[in-house]
Amino acid sequence: MEQSTHASVTRHRLGKPCSEVDDVLATEEPLEIRVEGRSVALTMRTPGHDEELAMGFLATEGVLHGSDDVLDLDICSARDDGSGNIINVRLRDPSSVDLDQLSRHVFTSSSCGLCGKATIDSVRDQHESISRDQALLITLPTLLQLPAKLRAAQTTFQATGGLHAAALFDPTGNLIVVREDVGRHNAVDKVLGRLLLDGGDAAKLGLLVSGRIAFEIAQKALAARVGLIAGISAPTSLAVDLAQTSGQTLVGFLRDNRCNVYAGELGD
Amino acid sequence: MEQSTHASVTRHRLGKPCSEVDDVLATEEPLEIRVEGRSVALTMRTPGHDEELAMGFLATEGVLHGSDDVLDLDICSARDDGSGNIINVRLRDPSSVDLDQLSRHVFTSSSCGLCGKATIDSVRDQHESISRDQALLITLPTLLQLPAKLRAAQTTFQATGGLHAAALFDPTGNLIVVREDVGRHNAVDKVLGRLLLDGGDAAKLGLLVSGRIAFEIAQKALAARVGLIAGISAPTSLAVDLAQTSGQTLVGFLRDNRCNVYAGELGD
Repeated sequence: MEQSTHASVTRHRLGKPCSEVDDVLATEEPLEIRVEGRSVALTMRTPGHDEELAMGFLATEGVLHGSDDVLDLDICSARDDGSGNIINVRLRDPSSVDLDQLSRHVFTSSSCGLCGKATIDSVRDQHESISRDQALLITLPTLLQLPAKLRAAQTTFQATGGLHAAALFDPTGNLIVVREDVGRHNAVDKVLGRLLLDGGDAAKLGLLVSGRIAFEIAQKALAARVGLIAGISAPTSLAVDLAQTSGQTLVGFLRDNRCNVYAGELGD
Repeated sequence: MEQSTHASVTRHRLGKPCSEVDDVLATEEPLEIRVEGRSVALTMRTPGHDEELAMGFLATEGVLHGSDDVLDLDICSARDDGSGNIINVRLRDPSSVDLDQLSRHVFTSSSCGLCGKATIDSVRDQHESISRDQALLITLPTLLQLPAKLRAAQTTFQATGGLHAAALFDPTGNLIVVREDVGRHNAVDKVLGRLLLDGGDAAKLGLLVSGRIAFEIAQKALAARVGLIAGISAPTSLAVDLAQTSGQTLVGFLRDNRCNVYAGELGD
């Protein structure tokens, strides 16, 4: 698999006609890491250098001490549909690792929205698509106001330069809730959690994120029934793929009075 | 706990004397999410709005459907040393959730370097500190050349705008290995994995990351015995805390011919 993927996008600029352009996306695919055939981790990664990723992950996780512990690293595409990749690590001395202990210690983390779904398709199966009449239609001028509003609301970022932000906004461009967190997925969980705790209507809200839009962000929005996702930076290939198949509108590079629409469409 | 934390840092600028300044860091602390008393996730987050985080996480994970499922959310600081926070979610109908199934589905992900260590102290306990005579001393002029070298090597980022990068560099500022990935922790795992697969000497190398330095990045570097970490953007409070107690040198905001040193020191 390639590290980048081509996609056709609609580029919008204030005061100019929109245009269809070819864009290059960072490729994102799941990798399952196994030790002696047993699954220990699932990560969304850019394909390539997977032996390094498995080695580095297992060593910094404390499972391995160095390459001397490893008999071989075997990469295989074991899914019938080819959507998933697996790397199996065989140890010189399997008895040296207590994998039972590891399993107890393996938690999900803030960037793990795919947890337990063996393939991306299963996420699509789990959540109904957003239908066209549910989709939030937002106009370009309204959309282009959002970055400045988000930045003005990022009070802790202004002090530290160290936080991601997420917000929910309504069709007129009002920010309903803004949260900042060191983890980008946490910021998204917090605004979606606020929505759920308030029993708000997700159908007429959009999600805005301060950075890049990876698969798990799109998946979380879909799970909360938020149909429009906008990001200041780039989306990944898999986020675009999910948005296109789930009826979500996905807007990237929302800055400098322009944006790219990767899935869905803007309002007139 | 506050969303930001004050720290004393040494600010270096090319051609000017360095100065001690007060800096504000984004606070990072672990949160353990429990459902009916059972641990389901550990995430590194910025304190605050933890009910929202738990609610959003569990809903987008598919455990809950909405706030109607929740009886209460109970935040407690159960660690004796106060270093950890726990939120327990009680359900109206515990039998409606198959937590056995959830546990099978809860994998670690790319940002989970703390997995299974109940407190940050346990990470410190697990890894020996970097001793002063092992520390890589790098001069300011050499350090200031790194951002341009990294950017030049980020070939896929240049095409997509969508990738994080990590690199290992030697005392003269040569980049030894550079990897790009949609996941920032994956990029770090890949360069550290390369080092381990090659059996290289970590003691005389530094780790450079394209973005922010969170705790798990510092923890991974420590696990691989890399004693110097430099980032283009801000570090978190917990990354600085770990670096200071483990003997690592931590450099942040390495850009525009300046940088901040949060732990350790530069060479003459």
